Amino acid sequence: MSSAPPTLADIRAAHARIRDKINRTPVLTSATLDALCGARLFFKCENFQKIGAFKARGATNAVFSLSPEEAARGVATHSSGNHGAALARAARLRGIAAHIVMPENTAKPKIESVRRQGGGIIFCAATATAREAAVARVVAETGATLIHPFNDHRVIAGQGTVALELLEEIPDLDLVIAPVGGGGLLSGTVIAGKGLRPGLRVIAAEPEAADDAARSFRSGKIVAMEQTSTIADGLRTSLGDKTFPIIYGQVDEIVTVSEAGIVAAMRQMWEVLKVIVEPSGAVPYAALHENKIAVAGQRVGIIISGGNLDLDRLPWQA
Amino acid sequence: MSSAPPTLADIRAAHARIRDKINRTPVLTSATLDALCGARLFFKCENFQKIGAFKARGATNAVFSLSPEEAARGVATHSSGNHGAALARAARLRGIAAHIVMPENTAKPKIESVRRQGGGIIFCAATATAREAAVARVVAETGATLIHPFNDHRVIAGQGTVALELLEEIPDLDLVIAPVGGGGLLSGTVIAGKGLRPGLRVIAAEPEAADDAARSFRSGKIVAMEQTSTIADGLRTSLGDKTFPIIYGQVDEIVTVSEAGIVAAMRQMWEVLKVIVEPSGAVPYAALHENKIAVAGQRVGIIISGGNLDLDRLPWQA
Repeated sequence: MSSAPPTLADIRAAHARIRDKINRTPVLTSATLDALCGARLFFKCENFQKIGAFKARGATNAVFSLSPEEAARGVATHSSGNHGAALARAARLRGIAAHIVMPENTAKPKIESVRRQGGGIIFCAATATAREAAVARVVAETGATLIHPFNDHRVIAGQGTVALELLEEIPDLDLVIAPVGGGGLLSGTVIAGKGLRPGLRVIAAEPEAADDAARSFRSGKIVAMEQTSTIADGLRTSLGDKTFPIIYGQVDEIVTVSEAGIVAAMRQMWEVLKVIVEPSGAVPYAALHENKIAVAGQRVGIIISGGNLDLDRLPWQA
Repeated sequence: MSSAPPTLADIRAAHARIRDKINRTPVLTSATLDALCGARLFFKCENFQKIGAFKARGATNAVFSLSPEEAARGVATHSSGNHGAALARAARLRGIAAHIVMPENTAKPKIESVRRQGGGIIFCAATATAREAAVARVVAETGATLIHPFNDHRVIAGQGTVALELLEEIPDLDLVIAPVGGGGLLSGTVIAGKGLRPGLRVIAAEPEAADDAARSFRSGKIVAMEQTSTIADGLRTSLGDKTFPIIYGQVDEIVTVSEAGIVAAMRQMWEVLKVIVEPSGAVPYAALHENKIAVAGQRVGIIISGGNLDLDRLPWQA
């Protein structure tokens, strides 16, 4: 499992492994949004997932894939976001230690979220070098298994269970749209989606302001994201050497959306669907909102990746 | 149907009549909120209903209960809120006219909502006298059938389908908590709830700042609400002569919640459940948040009545 890219069978196995430890999230529809887009839309609501994001799936699959010997030494990762909370939760469920390396400038709610799940936090300076060093140190000291947020086949298989459930519930989709940051969710989505339904189109959406995945996809090699301030903070990362080949080989298209489009799409989802969607989670619908994908008359699955954000300041408020 | 209070059979008939015209709304759960309350909570999400509130049910049942001759003359109501949009929508589905009397100071989004559904709006001065006169005039001129927002047995039967669906999905509840304003939803809930499950407790929650239902319940006669500025704007109305006897005869208890409690509960529902709940819709959960109901170890159904509010200004923002 750790060397070969996951298959549909691996995603099915992941689902069997994690299904009683995660939420089976609902699929919402809206006649209003259907009319606006001229298509039938099916929103898979991972904002209702444990810890408020799909990340619970991959982390849980990784932790419960460990042998008893590996598990006994705990798990470690670096994360300033949802993966840290997801890994801490999965480790707690398995009764093992989780060491989460976080930059010292991490927002307090995200720190609290990891703490609430029982994760041990190691703060480091807010640079990639410091982060890598801190993770290497904790792994060396404890023997913990590193569970990367996306560049890990067990994590990819877990994220693929989103599309597995979506297609179980709505089998006759023409298209699925997923967001892309590091590519874990997108990789799992395309493997599950095309595995279950070979003719299915899988399109990724990302912010124009963090268009490294689109550029990687065009150029055939990983283009790293240097720096970005996109509001979609979950999508600022670059692809990894495990996610890129899957995406390059199987995804149909990667489209980009504007910052204003993300905010407008997010607000429309709040107003019409009545669900709390974080900016990153609004990016796939933003691609429809900005007419970046031809969907007329089609049946379209849209993955809402998460719903964690600061409710004190909303992006459409000055 | 228009003279005797509805029975469980009437609510079942209402459900058969409207089920293909409304959403079957999901029931959400949260391990986090369960742990906070020491109970198992089941949130019936009518914020995901057509027009964003349970009102779609009662209005649709009323409109589709009309004879062809009655229907041909259209329907009329007075509403500054969700019932107007719900009635306009139901009339549009049946292909008949809807005349909605609205105070001239009604907020623009609510006017737009009725317009979007194709309803004809008659503006009147913002007094009860002007409103009654305007409704009487349109009924006299058109022969339209008045569909009252809550004091109508067809409407009550329609609202009862919320609890019908909830108990179909989660049959072994100990308690259901509903909000109470005019009492249409609460009446339907208690008839369906006790009809399906005789031992079920049904408790209503309302704002302390609009505690007319609690006072009516204690005194055994309808106490009118004079004036209130509760943030729960859907719960400012008084009980009617059709809802009060049902509530007085069957509801177990009416509890009240503070304004601060409504805001805190609403925010917690947004943060943890990731759903957009309007202040009125947060009132039942506020009763748990403020420890107004003993629920330890119980299975509790909570009706989220709606999710329509102005996203530019949130109540917890200064």
